[in-house]
Amino acid sequence: MNENPSRVEAFSDGVFAIAITLLILEIRVPHGGPGGRGGPGGLWTGLLALWPSYIAFLMSFFVILIEWVNHHELLRMVRAVNYPFLFANGFVLLTVTFLPFPTAVLAANLATPDAGAAVAFYCATFVVNALVWNLLFATIVRGRLLRAEVSEATVGNIRRTYYVAMSIYVLAAGLAFVQPALGLLLNASLWIVFIRLGYRSQSSSAQR
Amino acid sequence: MNENPSRVEAFSDGVFAIAITLLILEIRVPHGGPGGRGGPGGLWTGLLALWPSYIAFLMSFFVILIEWVNHHELLRMVRAVNYPFLFANGFVLLTVTFLPFPTAVLAANLATPDAGAAVAFYCATFVVNALVWNLLFATIVRGRLLRAEVSEATVGNIRRTYYVAMSIYVLAAGLAFVQPALGLLLNASLWIVFIRLGYRSQSSSAQR
Amino acid sequence: MNENPSRVEAFSDGVFAIAITLLILEIRVPHGGPGGRGGPGGLWTGLLALWPSYIAFLMSFFVILIEWVNHHELLRMVRAVNYPFLFANGFVLLTVTFLPFPTAVLAANLATPDAGAAVAFYCATFVVNALVWNLLFATIVRGRLLRAEVSEATVGNIRRTYYVAMSIYVLAAGLAFVQPALGLLLNASLWIVFIRLGYRSQSSSAQR
Amino acid sequence: MNENPSRVEAFSDGVFAIAITLLILEIRVPHGGPGGRGGPGGLWTGLLALWPSYIAFLMSFFVILIEWVNHHELLRMVRAVNYPFLFANGFVLLTVTFLPFPTAVLAANLATPDAGAAVAFYCATFVVNALVWNLLFATIVRGRLLRAEVSEATVGNIRRTYYVAMSIYVLAAGLAFVQPALGLLLNASLWIVFIRLGYRSQSSSAQR
Repeated sequence: MNENPSRVEAFSDGVFAIAITLLILEIRVPHGGPGGRGGPGGLWTGLLALWPSYIAFLMSFFVILIEWVNHHELLRMVRAVNYPFLFANGFVLLTVTFLPFPTAVLAANLATPDAGAAVAFYCATFVVNALVWNLLFATIVRGRLLRAEVSEATVGNIRRTYYVAMSIYVLAAGLAFVQPALGLLLNASLWIVFIRLGYRSQSSSAQR
Repeated sequence: MNENPSRVEAFSDGVFAIAITLLILEIRVPHGGPGGRGGPGGLWTGLLALWPSYIAFLMSFFVILIEWVNHHELLRMVRAVNYPFLFANGFVLLTVTFLPFPTAVLAANLATPDAGAAVAFYCATFVVNALVWNLLFATIVRGRLLRAEVSEATVGNIRRTYYVAMSIYVLAAGLAFVQPALGLLLNASLWIVFIRLGYRSQSSSAQR
Repeated sequence: MNENPSRVEAFSDGVFAIAITLLILEIRVPHGGPGGRGGPGGLWTGLLALWPSYIAFLMSFFVILIEWVNHHELLRMVRAVNYPFLFANGFVLLTVTFLPFPTAVLAANLATPDAGAAVAFYCATFVVNALVWNLLFATIVRGRLLRAEVSEATVGNIRRTYYVAMSIYVLAAGLAFVQPALGLLLNASLWIVFIRLGYRSQSSSAQR
Repeated sequence: MNENPSRVEAFSDGVFAIAITLLILEIRVPHGGPGGRGGPGGLWTGLLALWPSYIAFLMSFFVILIEWVNHHELLRMVRAVNYPFLFANGFVLLTVTFLPFPTAVLAANLATPDAGAAVAFYCATFVVNALVWNLLFATIVRGRLLRAEVSEATVGNIRRTYYVAMSIYVLAAGLAFVQPALGLLLNASLWIVFIRLGYRSQSSSAQR
C-alpha cells in the first residue's frame, strides 16, 4: 500500500486543529457564576491572577502551530504513505492530543511551589514528542517514502535537528527542577530551531 | 515556498469550525443533576436567568461566522501562501481560539456589577483580533501574494476598514466602563462593517 | 459571487462533526473520582441512573446525523453559493451548534418534575431549526442557485415537508407540557419524515 | 444515489479526529486551581495517582486510531456509497463518539472495587462497536458497493475477523467480572487482529 498522503493530511490537520482549539477550555473563568463574589474591579484582579494560564495557553498554542507547519512541510517531502507510516504518524498525533493535559498541569501549578515539577512534566512531554517525530522521520526514510528531489544533506540536517531538539528538551526538564522559569524559556527557545528547520526544508524542496 | 493555499484553508476552517462549536460548552445547564432542586416551573426561571450566556453565545457565534466568511473571501484574493503567511494566519487563529474565554467571562459577568470590566475585556480581545487581521493583510501585500486582478483601490479599502474597525473596538472598550450595554452594541455594530467589507471585496474580485 | 460550494461544505461538515461528537461530554461519569463512593455493584446502578442522558444523547445524535445527510443532499442540488447563502447556512449551523445545550437540559431534567419543560424547550429548539432550514431553502430558490435539473415539483415537495416538520415540532412542544414522553416521541417521529425527504430529493436528482 | 465516498470520508475523518482528541479532556489535573493544596513533591504523587486515566486514554486512543485506519482501508475498497451506507456508517460513528464516556468510566473506576464493572462496561461498548462494523460491511456487500477487484476470499476474511472480534469482546466483558486486568488485556489483544486485518485488506487491494 503506497498511496497518496492526502487523507492522512486531512485527519492529521483535524487533530492539530482540534488540539490547538481545546487549549482554551483549560482557562477557567474567574467568578464561576452570575452574581460573582467580588466587588466591582474584582474581575480585573481575577483576570490578572490567571497569568499562568495565559502563559501555558500561548506556549502550547505556538508549539502546536509550529508542529502543524512542520508536519505540513514534512508531508510535502513525502511522495507516498505506507502502513507503518500511518502508525508512526499516529504516535505523533498521540503526543499532540496529550498536550492539553501537561498544559493544564502547567497552568495550575506555575504560581505554586510545584512549579518546578509542572515545568519538568511539561518539558518531559516534549522529550517524548521529539522521540516520536524522530520515529516518524525514520519510518519515512526506511520506507523510501521521500521524493527523489530530497537530498541526503536535507535528510541529515533534519535528523540532526531532531536530536538537538530532544537533548535540549531533556536539559530543559532537568533545569526546571532548579529554575522553573529558565527551563520554560529553554523549552520555548526551540521554537526558533523548529521555525528555522521549516525554512530549511522548504528551501531545499524549492529546488524541485 | 509559494504554494497553493488549500491546506491552510483546511486547517483554518477546522479551527474556525471548532471554535464556533465550543462556544456552547460555556452555557451551563440550570439544575446541575437529575432530581434538580427547583419545583415544576423552576426550569423556565433557570433557563431565563441564563440570558447573559445567550447574548454572549450569539455575539461570538456571529463574529466567528463573519470572520470565517471574510477569511474565505481574503484567501480567494490570494494566489499563493509563503512562510510568514502561515504564522500571520496563525496569529489570527490564536485570537479566534481565544474567543471562547472572553465570551465565558462576558456570560458570567454581564448581570453583575463587573459587567463593565467584562465588556471592556471582551472588546479588548477584538482590538487584538483587528490588529492581527491587519498583520495578516500586511503580510499578504508585502509578500506580493495577491492575485494580479486585485486593484490598488481594493487594497486601500480593506486596509482602511481594518483601521476603522480597530478604532471602533478601542472606543467600545472605553465606552464599556461607563455604559456596558452601549459598548457591547457598538462592538456588534461592526458586524455590518465587516459584512459590507466582504461584499466589497467580492464585488471587486468579480471583475476577474 | 457565485462560487463552488466546496469550502462551505467543508466548514459545515466540520461544524456538524464537532457538534455530534461534543454531545458525549454532557454525560457525566457516575462516582466523580478514583475511590468512588459506592460499594461493588454501585457502578451499574450509577450507569443505569443515567438513562435520561442516554436517551438525550441518542436522540440528538440521530437528529444531527440526519440533518448532515440532508445538508449533504441539499448541497448536491445546488450549483453555486452566494453571499446570502453563506449567512443563511450560518443560521442552520447556529441551531446545530446550539443543540448540545437543550440536549443537556433534557438529560438533566427528564427524570424530574421539570421533564415537561425540558422536552418543550428541546422541541422549541427544533421549531427554530426548522425555520432556519426553511430560510436556507428560500435563499437558495430566490438566488436561483438550484441546478437546472431540479424540478418545480421537487422544490414544492421540500418546502411542504419543511412546513409539516415545523408544525409537528410546535405540536410536540405543546404536547410536552401535558405528556413529556409523547412529546419526545412525536419529535422523534420526524426522523422518518426527514429520512424519506432525503430519499425523495435524491431520487429526483437521480434523473440528471 | 450511488456517489463518490469523498464527503462521507471527510465527515467520518472529522468525527474520528474529534473523538480521539476529546479523550484528553477526561484526564483531570491534580490540584484543581492555582495555589494547589499539596507541598512540593505533591504534584508528582498526584500525577502518578492518575495511572488509571493514562491507561484508559492510551487504550482508547489506539483503538480509535486503528478504527480510523481500518475505516480508511475499507472505504478504499468501496466504489460508491448509497443511502443505507450513510446510516450504517452513522452507527459506526455513534459508537466512536460514545467511546469517551466508557473511557472516562474506566479511568474513574480502575483503581476502585468497581474495576470489574468498569472494564465489563468498556468491553461491552466494543461488542456493540463490532456489531455495527459488521452491519456496515453487510450494507456494503448487499448494496454491491465493493470494487470489482475485491475477491470473495477477502470478503470472507473480513467477515470472519469481525465475528472473531465480536466473540473475543464478549469473552473479555465476561472475564472482566472475575479478573478486570485480564479482561482489559484480552480487549487490547484485538488491536493485533485489527492491525493485521488492515494489512490483509490492503494486500488484496494491492492486486488491482
